[in-house]
Amino acid sequence: MYGFLNDYSEFAHENLLKAMFENSRTQSAPYGNDEFCERAREEIKKYFDDPECDIHFLEGGTQTNLTFISSVLRPHQGVITAVTGHINCHETGSIEATGHKVLAIESEDGKIRAEQIKEFVEAHYNDESSEHIVQPAMVYISNPTEVGTIYLKSEFYEISEMCKAKNLLLYLDGARLGTALCSDINDLSLSDIKRLCDAFYIGGTKMGALYGEALVISDSAVGKDFRYIQKQKGALAAKGFGIGIQFYELFRDGLYFRLAEHANRMANILENGIKRKGYQLRYDTHTNQIFPIFPKPVIQKLKSDFTFSFWEKYSDTDDVVRLCTSWATDIAEVEKFIEKI
Amino acid sequence: MYGFLNDYSEFAHENLLKAMFENSRTQSAPYGNDEFCERAREEIKKYFDDPECDIHFLEGGTQTNLTFISSVLRPHQGVITAVTGHINCHETGSIEATGHKVLAIESEDGKIRAEQIKEFVEAHYNDESSEHIVQPAMVYISNPTEVGTIYLKSEFYEISEMCKAKNLLLYLDGARLGTALCSDINDLSLSDIKRLCDAFYIGGTKMGALYGEALVISDSAVGKDFRYIQKQKGALAAKGFGIGIQFYELFRDGLYFRLAEHANRMANILENGIKRKGYQLRYDTHTNQIFPIFPKPVIQKLKSDFTFSFWEKYSDTDDVVRLCTSWATDIAEVEKFIEKI
Amino acid sequence: MYGFLNDYSEFAHENLLKAMFENSRTQSAPYGNDEFCERAREEIKKYFDDPECDIHFLEGGTQTNLTFISSVLRPHQGVITAVTGHINCHETGSIEATGHKVLAIESEDGKIRAEQIKEFVEAHYNDESSEHIVQPAMVYISNPTEVGTIYLKSEFYEISEMCKAKNLLLYLDGARLGTALCSDINDLSLSDIKRLCDAFYIGGTKMGALYGEALVISDSAVGKDFRYIQKQKGALAAKGFGIGIQFYELFRDGLYFRLAEHANRMANILENGIKRKGYQLRYDTHTNQIFPIFPKPVIQKLKSDFTFSFWEKYSDTDDVVRLCTSWATDIAEVEKFIEKI
Amino acid sequence: MYGFLNDYSEFAHENLLKAMFENSRTQSAPYGNDEFCERAREEIKKYFDDPECDIHFLEGGTQTNLTFISSVLRPHQGVITAVTGHINCHETGSIEATGHKVLAIESEDGKIRAEQIKEFVEAHYNDESSEHIVQPAMVYISNPTEVGTIYLKSEFYEISEMCKAKNLLLYLDGARLGTALCSDINDLSLSDIKRLCDAFYIGGTKMGALYGEALVISDSAVGKDFRYIQKQKGALAAKGFGIGIQFYELFRDGLYFRLAEHANRMANILENGIKRKGYQLRYDTHTNQIFPIFPKPVIQKLKSDFTFSFWEKYSDTDDVVRLCTSWATDIAEVEKFIEKI
Repeated sequence: MYGFLNDYSEFAHENLLKAMFENSRTQSAPYGNDEFCERAREEIKKYFDDPECDIHFLEGGTQTNLTFISSVLRPHQGVITAVTGHINCHETGSIEATGHKVLAIESEDGKIRAEQIKEFVEAHYNDESSEHIVQPAMVYISNPTEVGTIYLKSEFYEISEMCKAKNLLLYLDGARLGTALCSDINDLSLSDIKRLCDAFYIGGTKMGALYGEALVISDSAVGKDFRYIQKQKGALAAKGFGIGIQFYELFRDGLYFRLAEHANRMANILENGIKRKGYQLRYDTHTNQIFPIFPKPVIQKLKSDFTFSFWEKYSDTDDVVRLCTSWATDIAEVEKFIEKI
Repeated sequence: MYGFLNDYSEFAHENLLKAMFENSRTQSAPYGNDEFCERAREEIKKYFDDPECDIHFLEGGTQTNLTFISSVLRPHQGVITAVTGHINCHETGSIEATGHKVLAIESEDGKIRAEQIKEFVEAHYNDESSEHIVQPAMVYISNPTEVGTIYLKSEFYEISEMCKAKNLLLYLDGARLGTALCSDINDLSLSDIKRLCDAFYIGGTKMGALYGEALVISDSAVGKDFRYIQKQKGALAAKGFGIGIQFYELFRDGLYFRLAEHANRMANILENGIKRKGYQLRYDTHTNQIFPIFPKPVIQKLKSDFTFSFWEKYSDTDDVVRLCTSWATDIAEVEKFIEKI
Repeated sequence: MYGFLNDYSEFAHENLLKAMFENSRTQSAPYGNDEFCERAREEIKKYFDDPECDIHFLEGGTQTNLTFISSVLRPHQGVITAVTGHINCHETGSIEATGHKVLAIESEDGKIRAEQIKEFVEAHYNDESSEHIVQPAMVYISNPTEVGTIYLKSEFYEISEMCKAKNLLLYLDGARLGTALCSDINDLSLSDIKRLCDAFYIGGTKMGALYGEALVISDSAVGKDFRYIQKQKGALAAKGFGIGIQFYELFRDGLYFRLAEHANRMANILENGIKRKGYQLRYDTHTNQIFPIFPKPVIQKLKSDFTFSFWEKYSDTDDVVRLCTSWATDIAEVEKFIEKI
Repeated sequence: MYGFLNDYSEFAHENLLKAMFENSRTQSAPYGNDEFCERAREEIKKYFDDPECDIHFLEGGTQTNLTFISSVLRPHQGVITAVTGHINCHETGSIEATGHKVLAIESEDGKIRAEQIKEFVEAHYNDESSEHIVQPAMVYISNPTEVGTIYLKSEFYEISEMCKAKNLLLYLDGARLGTALCSDINDLSLSDIKRLCDAFYIGGTKMGALYGEALVISDSAVGKDFRYIQKQKGALAAKGFGIGIQFYELFRDGLYFRLAEHANRMANILENGIKRKGYQLRYDTHTNQIFPIFPKPVIQKLKSDFTFSFWEKYSDTDDVVRLCTSWATDIAEVEKFIEKI
């Protein structure tokens, strides 16, 4: 059995694990105040035109989302997201558990548009009973989205401008950010993202790290006292250096992007093979997740050799499935999969 | 500079990091449903007379405490702890952040007694306005405590019986559990603890792991739907196997206990050396934390070569400091420290 | 200016205020443990075939909803409601503020159907990642709904049966319950509601009381320790007798229902008048809220003499408005309104 | 039986209930946006040298405390109070339920001192691990305190200055504020309080109103969006005018203060009578609560004719009880009580 189930099936890239092994007994300061974290921060900042920002290392995506979002909202405020947003669908109400409503808006392709934000916020303030309705105070977007699509620079810029105009914070979930940045249709840079968002995280767990995400808060005022809240949410790793060393390894020589490129390339080969065999895809993705539409017998047959996930019913005879490649995906298995269809 | 600052200064024991490195590209199921976790559970269960229980792997101590405690309390219920309890002092109000009051009771040595629990609970139910007061529903104890002391079996048994009599859950924070179990005055076994508590966690982070704690819930009814709440709190590691593999390594051949013994032995040597030099200790500890009382000039001198933490003021001339040894503490540095005093 | 803005514009029915005035200096036990509350409970229970239940008096609807809902859900659980549900739209995220996601399902007429509940719950448990999704644990319905429609007995019964089958609590928001029970198409009794729900509240504030709602919890196990949570949420009125005396007055001789009938009758006259003038209504209501579709110039003209609320845009030329009658609505004003159209 | 149990045993002063009765069918705007509330605000502001402030009407004390406190704290922040503070003891963890730790400091007489605040806050920021500890951000005091004592102007001024110096908000719980202001040893005015606090509430429920408290927020920035949070907590009365009319009646001609004076005078007569009979008091109070120390047989005897509450054990033979007078206390009953001792 080979897995296309997700991009967090493998432990971690060898370089990261080797660096840890070599430092087994190295003593470091706790809670992210160590040299490894500091060096990782410096490597990441090299990608920003303006290096001024706070970078915190957290353990996972849900943790990062809930810790950051709850750190800046007041009790009556909520966060706007596409209905497909991870915080709306697959984090067991983690945002609500911190007291805030998730304000979901329609989306066909996992993305939201500046115009939708405008309408939503204006509808709020134009309501005679605004005070009886959760106040929108932040926009959450994912890049790539949960269905593998990505934001173009122009779209991103418009969202950012709209957030400023409407007094909303803009936060980007970058669980798979590398695959967006390395997508063949991408025109955004890390520096653009840093400039256009109030905060975002560079995912590690789904991009080759054992665990860990790097949260970048562009404005120190927004990040005031963030470490208190990290600790409160159980999100301040005692051995922060365990995450720092991984991000240092990922960023010091561009490994992060090479791993993303590999994942994207494997997905691209899969996609082309699937199309050649005459099947269609549910979304037009250019990252490491693809969503083919297969007849049920084909799915049954594939299941004997591969793991992947059911996405949604397409018709009485066909289902959409999700195939996910990763930094570690084996080309031989990709080819076997295509053959098997 | 050498650190006696805490027991989470070093990365992790070599065996753990080596096992991860060797499995760099091994594919496993996500969220703790993998073989590594399963094997780790089996190894841990070998220490229990009655193996029936749920074992979950979480990332850190604060996270484990807040996730478990909030998973079982109703909104009007609180958790009893010694004033020195970690949840009361050093987790930035993590329990309150989930909606529950921490009910602190006096303690001279970091421990609480069955009789104190009795009095507290009876005072609650005897109050004419019980409903205006947070209802005690759980007891939280740490073993070893935050000041290095440990519970004897008789004390533990009495607390457990009192909790049953008063309809309270008993939860043990075992961040440094190994050092308690390996203390020269200990008479408790892992199996005793499992039998006497509703839940407890076996600490990894402070005991030689890179990160990770093993939460044992003795009764499945108490643990109903726990994984939902884990996910909600950002405490369900996507790569659960990264924790599982470490606990497997720690428990498959008793490494966990050998590491604890080492930490305790180093603390014991330090303690004896300090006493020989004519200094006293604030608490009578038999684990890996010691609390010597030093004149301020001595502290200043030691600070040029060693890191450790200020604990509390003792007098105008003397302070209490905390020295913490670990699984990795170097005997040569221990001797240098003693010499330097 | 005369108001059709809402049904809480007037202070309270004379009988209630007179009873209070006459008891100005009467001493009573606090927190709902008094004779007035006890007598009110007895009067209400006379309407139930099986009088076994707990009745608590709270101050307002949002308060009642958030206090009851948060008292029974575990942290990972959410409450199903129609998208139009008051808790979803107009309580400023009060449920989320207690940590729980509101699970909104589509509705055209403010009602939800048993079949929708079935699909929603089955989709949850059939999901491979159920634990990553908020668990549905309660159904919230309003009767009448927020758009004035009501549940027929058969619909209500099916929902109740579905909730039992799917292990969901059923809770009814009865802010305007009297108007539903007195609707000309109603076939439900208070006793039916009590039998078919786990809890519901009989609204006072919108039905002639100065303030106050009567929460009925059908099963004492569901209501265990409810008073603790009432106090915690600031929802345990010190002078509970101030609410008790009002419900006693409302129920001792059927005043509650007479007031509801009046409100419905006024709405019915309004509706007929509007139809006679050639205008249509957005919803087919049989209670005290009606939703006529008027051309904008008509709305402007009416606004100079009457207050009412904008509901939604209907077309470029027409808007939907809401007219709300109450126990105190003056028939002369109703007639003036119709004339003015 | 006559009650000295509390000061919320009687319904409300006749003037208030009469005004409501006379307005039974008067239509008003909802949610505190009405004329009655507006007039009440004006009357209250007449007592302030600087009338600039926001005044909101809420339903009860616990509700007011939790709504205001949670509206201004960030997640990692807590509120300092005396251990005897109502929010610490008798509100069922209402503050914790909104996510915030109550930071209790020692007190012998229900009051806290500026110096204690200084020490507490400095200890926090001097701690090497401040981020692991809840950040003090507000001071909560009660005047009169829960044991009937009051703050002198000098004490109050020092606390206010300390709060400014340490960047803490100062909030005063004035559930019985009238009795403090009318105490024979008082030297504070309403205007002083308004100037020295960021927010405080003028209690209605315990001072002659049927229900309702007037929250004064001195600085509009502190009160930004407060109404959203009021709604969210179920604390925005639909019929706000029901509270407004009462405060208008209480303040338009000084009734509030006359009622407080009466309560104090009754307590004073009781106290003198008790002392004449040779008994002592636990606290030196000058308001409407007194705490005599009686032998148990005396208590038993009194209980056959009067209700009052047990306060605490004093010795094996004696207990402390609480006697509470009110705006409605009957002088004849006071004399009977004294006779009976």
